[in-house]
Amino acid sequence: MKIGIVGLGLIGGSLGLDWRSQGHYVTGISRREDICKIALNRGIADYSGTDFKLLADAEIVVICTPIQAIATTIKKIVPHLSPETIVTDVGSVKQPIVEECSQLWSNFIGGHPMAGTAESGINAALSNLFQGAAYVFTPTVESNPDNVEKLKAIALDLNAVPHVCNAQVHDRAVSWISHLPVMVSASLLKACLEEEPNTLSLAQVLASSGFKDTSRVGGGNPELGVMMAKYNREELLRSLYSYQDNLSEIIEAIEDEKWENLSVILAKNRQARPEFLN
Amino acid sequence: MKIGIVGLGLIGGSLGLDWRSQGHYVTGISRREDICKIALNRGIADYSGTDFKLLADAEIVVICTPIQAIATTIKKIVPHLSPETIVTDVGSVKQPIVEECSQLWSNFIGGHPMAGTAESGINAALSNLFQGAAYVFTPTVESNPDNVEKLKAIALDLNAVPHVCNAQVHDRAVSWISHLPVMVSASLLKACLEEEPNTLSLAQVLASSGFKDTSRVGGGNPELGVMMAKYNREELLRSLYSYQDNLSEIIEAIEDEKWENLSVILAKNRQARPEFLN
Repeated sequence: MKIGIVGLGLIGGSLGLDWRSQGHYVTGISRREDICKIALNRGIADYSGTDFKLLADAEIVVICTPIQAIATTIKKIVPHLSPETIVTDVGSVKQPIVEECSQLWSNFIGGHPMAGTAESGINAALSNLFQGAAYVFTPTVESNPDNVEKLKAIALDLNAVPHVCNAQVHDRAVSWISHLPVMVSASLLKACLEEEPNTLSLAQVLASSGFKDTSRVGGGNPELGVMMAKYNREELLRSLYSYQDNLSEIIEAIEDEKWENLSVILAKNRQARPEFLN
Repeated sequence: MKIGIVGLGLIGGSLGLDWRSQGHYVTGISRREDICKIALNRGIADYSGTDFKLLADAEIVVICTPIQAIATTIKKIVPHLSPETIVTDVGSVKQPIVEECSQLWSNFIGGHPMAGTAESGINAALSNLFQGAAYVFTPTVESNPDNVEKLKAIALDLNAVPHVCNAQVHDRAVSWISHLPVMVSASLLKACLEEEPNTLSLAQVLASSGFKDTSRVGGGNPELGVMMAKYNREELLRSLYSYQDNLSEIIEAIEDEKWENLSVILAKNRQARPEFLN
């Protein structure tokens, strides 16, 4: 297939490496000439440049820009595309993107390959980044089923595992497993930092793996955290309210010294977690 | 020194291994004959038996039973001790234990070596388990300073790092770094498990390291979780209330779309976490 990739960072670059290795013809677009050169040198693209006209014969275009630039990028490329071209993105939130971008291009289908590293930028691009990872597609009722099949096929070429669901279910699920944990973990750090210095410095000395793990995602990239909250606000608030209720239930059990209730909650968690993570 | 260890599980056994290797004479007490045999075979104790009379010439006795058995064990051993014997424990909560046990034995000083593994029992005992770990002692104003020095010295023999503070500061600090994270993490699992099956099964497919780390301590041993809450109830509730307030602040920022506020909170966390964990 002729695949265009717009935005050559960690995700765009890694997609290019794997698709080229499977025999697809990859055109890489970046705003910066130096990035295009790196893309060619690293074997990320067969052809690379800054001009959207290069996408004229692409069968699939994958927008790999930051989430806030996806719609504006699509507006800029549509004058250059042939009408059958499938456009997809890699944003970590789907509902607002699908809503806006389906209006801009009827053959738009949202996508989310669930892989990454702590690094970013084209130099962080890796082969086999998506091996075994979920790759979610969120077509609407109006999407052409053939187009969904074509996207699933190029996801399989990455050795990723394609999943198809609606955008709201996707956004709910990622709120539970990714966006909510960030806010839960951030609140732990924030609360802890308010403790008076004497206790805080002992806590610091005593902190080990339990605190380390529970506070990890709350100490991550602030821009990313704000972006999640901004774009997935509704679903994140929904899961936060549910979290608040469940926290209150645990607090009540401790306040009322209902140890049997607390024990049942914790035992259920211990049983469910390994199943959940398998 | 002549050291008695009462309760030969992971902690008691590991203490015995290291103290013997430093030339201390260790007497190991267990309720079970078979455990005493293992203690001798594994080099955990120089002498081992079920009779508290064996503690008659011990200079230091370390109670390594589960937290709920510490005070009753001390009641049973005191008739056999010489008056100068220092008694300490290894319980993970100090205030209630120090309060009760200081009444039972005037030379009692609370202790908490902060190391462990996921395993338990004498067969899990390890050499060098306490290397580099904090070992907290919580004397009262009435404690003999010489006794504190003797305990610090045997902690150093484990290559542990002794810290001396009052029991309340200890319990506050461990609530922040150990007990609160368990409840925060347990609430996440509990809330998530209430989601309807369709979304939950997608969440399950998509869950990766972020969810895994944030939910880890909330999926641990329920008996241990209840024990923390029971014995450190007051300090745990204090940190839970503070956590609730901080969570509400983050929720409010998201509700009101005050992205700058959220950004400041997350940026502060990112900066503080590495310092905190160093």
